Amino acid sequence: MTRIDLDPDRLLPAEPSQRAVARRLHQEVGNLPIVSPHGHVDPLLLLEDRPFDDPAALFITPDHYVTRMLHAHGVPLGALGVPRRDGDGSGADPREIWRLLCRHWEAFRGTPSRYWIEAQLAGVFDVPIRPSADDADQIYDRLLERFALPEYRPRALFDRFNVEVLATTDDPCSDLFVHRRLAEDPTWTGRVVPTFRADRYLDPSLDGWSTCIDELGRAAGVDTSSYSGYIEALQERRAHFKRQGATATDHGPPDAGTATLSPAQAERIFVSARGAKASGDETRAFRQHMVCEMARMSCDDGLVMQLHPGVFRNHHPQTWRDHGTDQGADIPVAIEFTRALRPLLDLYGAHPNFRMVVFTLDETTWSRELAPLAGFYPSVYIGAPWWFLDTPDALLRFREAVTDTAGFAKTSGFIDDTRAFGSIPVRHDVARRIDCAYLSRLVVEHRLAEAEAAATARDLAHRLPLEVFRL
Amino acid sequence: MTRIDLDPDRLLPAEPSQRAVARRLHQEVGNLPIVSPHGHVDPLLLLEDRPFDDPAALFITPDHYVTRMLHAHGVPLGALGVPRRDGDGSGADPREIWRLLCRHWEAFRGTPSRYWIEAQLAGVFDVPIRPSADDADQIYDRLLERFALPEYRPRALFDRFNVEVLATTDDPCSDLFVHRRLAEDPTWTGRVVPTFRADRYLDPSLDGWSTCIDELGRAAGVDTSSYSGYIEALQERRAHFKRQGATATDHGPPDAGTATLSPAQAERIFVSARGAKASGDETRAFRQHMVCEMARMSCDDGLVMQLHPGVFRNHHPQTWRDHGTDQGADIPVAIEFTRALRPLLDLYGAHPNFRMVVFTLDETTWSRELAPLAGFYPSVYIGAPWWFLDTPDALLRFREAVTDTAGFAKTSGFIDDTRAFGSIPVRHDVARRIDCAYLSRLVVEHRLAEAEAAATARDLAHRLPLEVFRL
Amino acid sequence: MTRIDLDPDRLLPAEPSQRAVARRLHQEVGNLPIVSPHGHVDPLLLLEDRPFDDPAALFITPDHYVTRMLHAHGVPLGALGVPRRDGDGSGADPREIWRLLCRHWEAFRGTPSRYWIEAQLAGVFDVPIRPSADDADQIYDRLLERFALPEYRPRALFDRFNVEVLATTDDPCSDLFVHRRLAEDPTWTGRVVPTFRADRYLDPSLDGWSTCIDELGRAAGVDTSSYSGYIEALQERRAHFKRQGATATDHGPPDAGTATLSPAQAERIFVSARGAKASGDETRAFRQHMVCEMARMSCDDGLVMQLHPGVFRNHHPQTWRDHGTDQGADIPVAIEFTRALRPLLDLYGAHPNFRMVVFTLDETTWSRELAPLAGFYPSVYIGAPWWFLDTPDALLRFREAVTDTAGFAKTSGFIDDTRAFGSIPVRHDVARRIDCAYLSRLVVEHRLAEAEAAATARDLAHRLPLEVFRL
Repeated sequence: MTRIDLDPDRLLPAEPSQRAVARRLHQEVGNLPIVSPHGHVDPLLLLEDRPFDDPAALFITPDHYVTRMLHAHGVPLGALGVPRRDGDGSGADPREIWRLLCRHWEAFRGTPSRYWIEAQLAGVFDVPIRPSADDADQIYDRLLERFALPEYRPRALFDRFNVEVLATTDDPCSDLFVHRRLAEDPTWTGRVVPTFRADRYLDPSLDGWSTCIDELGRAAGVDTSSYSGYIEALQERRAHFKRQGATATDHGPPDAGTATLSPAQAERIFVSARGAKASGDETRAFRQHMVCEMARMSCDDGLVMQLHPGVFRNHHPQTWRDHGTDQGADIPVAIEFTRALRPLLDLYGAHPNFRMVVFTLDETTWSRELAPLAGFYPSVYIGAPWWFLDTPDALLRFREAVTDTAGFAKTSGFIDDTRAFGSIPVRHDVARRIDCAYLSRLVVEHRLAEAEAAATARDLAHRLPLEVFRL
Repeated sequence: MTRIDLDPDRLLPAEPSQRAVARRLHQEVGNLPIVSPHGHVDPLLLLEDRPFDDPAALFITPDHYVTRMLHAHGVPLGALGVPRRDGDGSGADPREIWRLLCRHWEAFRGTPSRYWIEAQLAGVFDVPIRPSADDADQIYDRLLERFALPEYRPRALFDRFNVEVLATTDDPCSDLFVHRRLAEDPTWTGRVVPTFRADRYLDPSLDGWSTCIDELGRAAGVDTSSYSGYIEALQERRAHFKRQGATATDHGPPDAGTATLSPAQAERIFVSARGAKASGDETRAFRQHMVCEMARMSCDDGLVMQLHPGVFRNHHPQTWRDHGTDQGADIPVAIEFTRALRPLLDLYGAHPNFRMVVFTLDETTWSRELAPLAGFYPSVYIGAPWWFLDTPDALLRFREAVTDTAGFAKTSGFIDDTRAFGSIPVRHDVARRIDCAYLSRLVVEHRLAEAEAAATARDLAHRLPLEVFRL
Repeated sequence: MTRIDLDPDRLLPAEPSQRAVARRLHQEVGNLPIVSPHGHVDPLLLLEDRPFDDPAALFITPDHYVTRMLHAHGVPLGALGVPRRDGDGSGADPREIWRLLCRHWEAFRGTPSRYWIEAQLAGVFDVPIRPSADDADQIYDRLLERFALPEYRPRALFDRFNVEVLATTDDPCSDLFVHRRLAEDPTWTGRVVPTFRADRYLDPSLDGWSTCIDELGRAAGVDTSSYSGYIEALQERRAHFKRQGATATDHGPPDAGTATLSPAQAERIFVSARGAKASGDETRAFRQHMVCEMARMSCDDGLVMQLHPGVFRNHHPQTWRDHGTDQGADIPVAIEFTRALRPLLDLYGAHPNFRMVVFTLDETTWSRELAPLAGFYPSVYIGAPWWFLDTPDALLRFREAVTDTAGFAKTSGFIDDTRAFGSIPVRHDVARRIDCAYLSRLVVEHRLAEAEAAATARDLAHRLPLEVFRL
C-alpha cells in the first residue's frame, strides 16, 4: 500500500530561493474563499444534499477527463458506467468500475486527473492511499464509509471548501427552479448562480434548433415565429436569468467568427432556417451574427459574455451514437481570433458596459492574439487555461505567454469548468500554486517586488474573478 | 515611496550555479557598444539636441506599448495626449497624463513596459522611485529637473548609451536632409543611418498609392507613369539612401507572400492600379511580386532586406478614425513562411549578395519554419523577437526555439524597434541578459564550454548585428 | 586543442536536488538495450561489416543535418561530397570536407548535430578533441586509425551500442535480400527488421507513380492494371515484409488528410492516374483514400502504421535539380490533424488490431491535437519529436506538452530516424536524459514518486517502443 503524501510544497519550483518565495506567496492565498465563475456542477446536488452514491459515480462515470483516458487504453465506456443514448443503463457494478480505474492508475501518471483524484483522496476524503489493483477494494470501502458521514455530504463540503460563489451552466429555457429553491432555503447560506448557455438556440445548423426556438418562445411567453420575437424571447430569458442572480452568458461556438447582418437579412435567414431551408453559409452567418447580438444585449443588461470556441465536438461518430455528447471525444482545432472577433469588437470593443472573457484550447493564440486584444480593448479579458490546458504546466505557460502583453489585470482569474464537485478546491489550489510559482520567478529575477507579487496573487485568486465576472 | 533597485542580477536565472555563469557572461557584454539596426527614433531629436519636453512626451504619448495598456484599462487615448487625426491637439496636461500612468502602474506588473520605464527612471534619469498615485508629482518634478541638465540632452545620452550606430526608418521620398545635416555637423561624431521603408509604394491596395507613385517620380526625377519608370525610380531612391549610409530596406506587408509576374503582367497591373482599376487579386499579386523585385535590387545594391509580415494594422476602426495609425490597435495574425517565401528563395535564396532578415510575431513559426529556412538558405537570417515578443520570456523562448536548428550565427542580433529614445540601452541590456541566461543553461548542462558561451554572447551583442546588417 | 569532456550530468537540470533525482533515474536506464523502431541505416553496412571509409563519409556527406547547416553558411553541397543527380561524383577530397566542417564548427554551437558529433568523437571513437580549424587534421588522422581497428567496425559497434532491434526503411518492391542474408548469417546475432515505406506507390501525383505501380505488380506477381490488382499487390508486399520480420509501415504524405472513396471511385481515379489523366483533386483524394486503405490492411495484418506528414520536400528547386532529395532543403509546414484524421479514425480509431503512431514537425499540434487524440482513441499513439525537433529542448517541450493529456503510456518511445549509424546510441541517450530531466521535475514538485518515475523512465526507454511497435 502506498500512502499519498500531500507535500506542502507540491507544484512549487524546486530551486530553494524561488520555492521559499512561492511558499510565502501561497500562504497569502491558500485560504482565500473560492470564486468559481464557470462550472458544470448540478445545483440539485446542493439542494438535495444527499450522500454521494459511490466512488465510481463521484470520480469516474461523469468525468470525461477520466473516462476518455481509460477508453484510450481500451476500456469501453459502457464498462465505466457511461449510459447509452438509447436509455439503457450500463449495468456496470460501481466497484468493478473503480477497480478498472485502479488497475489503470499508471496510465494517469503525469496527468492532472491523477493529481486531482489523489489530492481529493488524501485532502478531501482522508483516504490517502494511492490507487492500485491491490488496494482498489480497500479504498472503495473506506470512501463508502466517508460518504455515509454527515461531514462528507455536498453542503458540508461546500462549506469546508470555502466556496464564496459557484456559477452553474443552465439552459435558457430552464425555469431555474433549483436555484430559486436553494436561494429560498433558510438552512442554506451559500451562493449559487446560474449562467445563460444558449448555444443550441443560436446555431441553426444544430439538430433540433427549430424545436428549441419553439420551446424558447414558450419559456419566454413570446411568439418566436419571427426574428424579432426570437430576439425578444432571448432578451426575456436573459432577464429571467439575471433576476435569479446570473452575471454571465456562456458561448461555445465551433469558431470565433462574428458578423453582422441587417435586420432584413437576419429575418430572412431566420425564416429559412425555421423551415430547414437555410444553406450552410447562411446558418454560419446567422450564428456569427447572433454572437454580436448577444454582445449587444450584454451592453444593455451587463451580463458578462464568455466565449470559448475551437472544439470539434463528438469527433468519434460511434461514441456519439452510443453514448452521446461530452464523453471525451471532443478534440480541439486551431483557432483564429484577430480577424474573427473584429466585427464584434468594432461595435462593442470599447463599450463601457460590455465585457467578454475569451478562453481557448489553442495555446498559440495566447501571445499572438488574445494578449494583444486584451492589451488594447477595454472590453476583452483573457479567460483561464481550460479543459485540456487546466494543468500545472499549461497554467504556467499561460502566464508566461500572456503577462508580457496583457499583464495580470486583463486576465479573468481561474475557471474550474468542472463536473467533479470534489475537485473544486483541488483545482483552484493548483491554479493558485502555479500563479505563485510564476510570480516567485518574477521576484527572484528582480522583475517584481515580493509585496507586489503577494498583492497580485491575491488579486488573481479572489478579487479579479469577482470583478471580471461582476459577481 | 518605494525605491527602484536595479539588482545587478536582474533577469538572470535564480539557480545559483547558473546565475554565476550568467553573471560572468553578462560582464563580458554589458558594456559593449550598442548596434541598433532597426528603430523609429526621429533623427531630428539628435540634430536639434533640445531638452526633452516633459515625462509624458518622453515616456507615454508616443509609446503605443504604454498607451494601448492604459486604453485597455479604460483610459481614452485623448487623455494621454495622443493627437487627433483631424489635427486637434488633445490639450491634455502633461502632468495629468503622467498621473494617469502612475495611477495605473499596477496594470503594468509583469510587462516589459514596466521594466523598461523603471530601468530608465533608476538607471538613466536617476529618479529611482516606483510610480504610484502618491508619488506621481514628485517623480514628474524630479524628471523635469533632470531634463533641464545638459547631461540629459539627447546627444549626451546618445554618448552615454554608447550607441555605435543607430538606424532610423525613412520614407523613400525623403531627401534625408536631417541625416545629411547630422553627418555634416562637426560637433557630432555619432553614426545615424537611414533605412528604406517602402511599404506604401509597393502595395497598390493601400489608400493613396497612386499619389505616392507620383511623389516617388518627383523625388527620383523619373517619370513613374510606366512600370519601368516606377522600377527605375525605386532603384534611384535606394541608391540615394545608400549614398546617405543606408544598409537596409524594411518591409512590413500583411502576409509573407512572394510571387513573380512577367514584365507584361506587372506593367498591365501597374497601369490598372494607377487608374484604381486593379482587382484585389491583382494588387496582391503585384505586392508580392514587388517583394521579389526588392530582393532582386538587393542582389544588385547589397541593401539587406528586412521582412516582418503578419500584423493586422488598425484593428479598431474607431481608433483609426480618431487617432490614425500606430496607436496600439495592431493585432498579430498567424503567418505562413514555408510556401510563401518559396518563389523568392527559388530566385535568390542562394544568391551570394542577397540577405534577408525575417522577423515575426507568430512564435509558432520559429521552430517550424524560420529556423529550418535559415538553417538551409545562406541568404536567410532570423530577426529578433519583436514588438509583443520583445520581452524577457519571449526572448528566451526565441533562443530555445531556433538555436537547435539554426544555431546562433543565423540570427541577426537584437533589434530594439523603439520610438522611445531613453529605452534603447535598457532594451539592449534586457536582450543581452536573456541571451546570457540562455547561454548559461547550455553551460551548466554541459552543452557548451563557458569560453564558447562568452564568445557567443559577444557575437550576439555586437559582431552579428554589424555583420548581418552590413553596418 | 580543446578536450571534449562528456560530463556524467550532461543535459540534466542544474538545480542540485533535481539533478540528483535525474541522475538516479538515468542510472536506471542508461544501460538498457536500444530499441530503434524507425531509422534509415542501410542494412548492407551490417551485412558487409566493412570498416568505415573516412570521417567525411561517416559524419558529413550523408547527414543532411550537417550539410544543410554548412550550406546555410555558404558552403556548396558539392564541396561536401554530396553527389550530383547527373551521376557525377563530387570529387571532393574527404580530408578537405572534414576541414570544412571543422572550420565552421562554431556555427553548430547549441545544435544537436554538435552534441551528437562531439559525443561520438569522445564516447564512441575515443577521439575527444573539439573540432577546430587547427585540429582538423589531427582528429581526421586519429579517426582513420580507429576505423581500421576491428572494434570500430559496424557489427562490433552494433554490439557495443547494445542494439536489441533496429528497423530500417525499405521500398515495397525490395526483395529484402540483405535482411534475409543477415538473418541467415550464422555469425550475426543482431535483429534488423525492414519497414514498409510505400509513399511513392500511394500518391499518384508523384513523378513516376505509374511506373512504380508496374514494378509493384512485377514484385508481387500480380497484375496491377486494375485497382483491385493494385490493392492485392500492396497486400502481398506487406505480407512479404511481415514474413521478413517487419512490424510496421511508414507514411510521409504532405498532409494528414484521410478520405474514403467507393470502390468505383477508387477504380476510376486509379485508371485515370495510370494514364496521367487524373486531376489534382483526384490524385489528392486517392492519396488520402490510400491512407485509409493502409489502415484497413493494418487491421488485418497487424503492421503498425507510422504517419508523419507536414514537410514541404525539396523546397529549393536548384538543390533538387543538382543533388536530388534529402539534402536538407525540406521545410516543415503547419499541419492539421483533428479534421484530417477523422475519416480514418471513424473507421478504425477503436479497432482492436489497429495502431497508428503519429509524429509531427509542428509543435503546436502536440497539446492541441495529438495528445487529445491519443488520450481518447485506443489506436492512436504519439510518436517522438522528430527531425528538427529531435533536440534536448524540443524533447523536453514534447513531454511538457503531451503528458498532461495523454500521459506517458500513449507515447511511442524514442525514434532516432537517423542515417548516421554512429549517432544511434548518442541520440537514444539524449532522449533518455531528457525524459529523466522531465521526470525529475515531476518528482521534486511532488507530482510523482521517485519509484514511479524510475518505472516510467524504463518504460519509455525500452518497454514502450517494443510494445507500441509490436517488436
